[in-house]
Amino acid sequence: MHEILIEEKILSRNNEIASGNRAFFKERKIFAVNVVSSPGAGKTALLERAVPALKDRVAIAVVEGDLATDLDAKRVGRFGVPVRQITTGRACHLDAHNISHVLPWVEEQGAVGLLLMENVGNMVCPAEYDLGEALRLVVMSVAEGDDKPLKYPAIFSSSDVLVLNKIDLLGHTDFDIERARSNALRINPYLKVFETSCRTGEGIDRLCAFLEGEMIRAKK
Amino acid sequence: MHEILIEEKILSRNNEIASGNRAFFKERKIFAVNVVSSPGAGKTALLERAVPALKDRVAIAVVEGDLATDLDAKRVGRFGVPVRQITTGRACHLDAHNISHVLPWVEEQGAVGLLLMENVGNMVCPAEYDLGEALRLVVMSVAEGDDKPLKYPAIFSSSDVLVLNKIDLLGHTDFDIERARSNALRINPYLKVFETSCRTGEGIDRLCAFLEGEMIRAKK
Repeated sequence: MHEILIEEKILSRNNEIASGNRAFFKERKIFAVNVVSSPGAGKTALLERAVPALKDRVAIAVVEGDLATDLDAKRVGRFGVPVRQITTGRACHLDAHNISHVLPWVEEQGAVGLLLMENVGNMVCPAEYDLGEALRLVVMSVAEGDDKPLKYPAIFSSSDVLVLNKIDLLGHTDFDIERARSNALRINPYLKVFETSCRTGEGIDRLCAFLEGEMIRAKK
Repeated sequence: MHEILIEEKILSRNNEIASGNRAFFKERKIFAVNVVSSPGAGKTALLERAVPALKDRVAIAVVEGDLATDLDAKRVGRFGVPVRQITTGRACHLDAHNISHVLPWVEEQGAVGLLLMENVGNMVCPAEYDLGEALRLVVMSVAEGDDKPLKYPAIFSSSDVLVLNKIDLLGHTDFDIERARSNALRINPYLKVFETSCRTGEGIDRLCAFLEGEMIRAKK
């Protein structure tokens, strides 16, 4: 019971800080995206596709959240956009406080239009921590099993976009993409669902066009 | 700072209860295995292979940990072994307290020799929570990326066995199995590494023979 009260307190404090982050982004017309998934679903690979596709049309900055290493920051940094690593140590998710510490760095990058925040690979804890994002995007690999939306409902119900990734593997697994889609929409009927292969590049254009549309809508 | 102190207190209380669970298992010669991985790496599929392979040689009971649903319990229950579902709600891992509540049920099943405890799919939080197991087995799918041991070190350093699963997908991904193995052994040189495909059944015999050997050793 004590444990739950402490957790509620931590979450309510997180929500306050997230509101501050959101106000910061809104004032500067920065579209912030929180990218979440299991480890290895393809968040970094998705950024490696989206960043070169979008970077000539919008100024991008990237925040990489990891328990350990700066491997992902190095991968995304190759595309010549500013990348900031947050190493969380034992913490299983980014929180609004982590992001608030990065805001001065974002400011230094000049007129950033799109801030991509790659969370720690985890389908549970990141669901509860608002970072102040405009859009939450959950990536799910077709190698993971089509029942995952039912088994990890909070991450799907708190997201705006679902990317079904690694569709190049579809023929080699027992994954039923229609069942995955309907399981996800059962949990959250407002989800926009995209299918991508970061290996072949399939579906990336459609997703990027959608993100651009959302950025324009948000500025209005 | 307060948050860290509370966490230390929770973990030290968990360790106490885990010691009690361990004594319970030891007294009754029950070999308890804690199975951990990302969502969708194949923990349940591994049980669906291991349970029929072993159940005529040892009395098995299974505990299934999930945030929501009893889908996995139903899958494993088909093999005619007793299965107990623990639904954790928002909690991102099983803990020793969850398991302590299941011990009377284990007792009721008669002379159980092998207790398989499938944790919540998560590469972070389960690393810190001892359940009182004799052996911790981490499953990693070749669809996840060979850098995962470096990025989620705690789960690899706290495990005894690493199962590299879905090797039937090897030709269809950029996963380098030797790099994965060496990354894992860099984090934990004591890991026993197995390669399996739960889809084709490859490698299951070797893993089950190893588990049987460990069970016999533990009884001595």
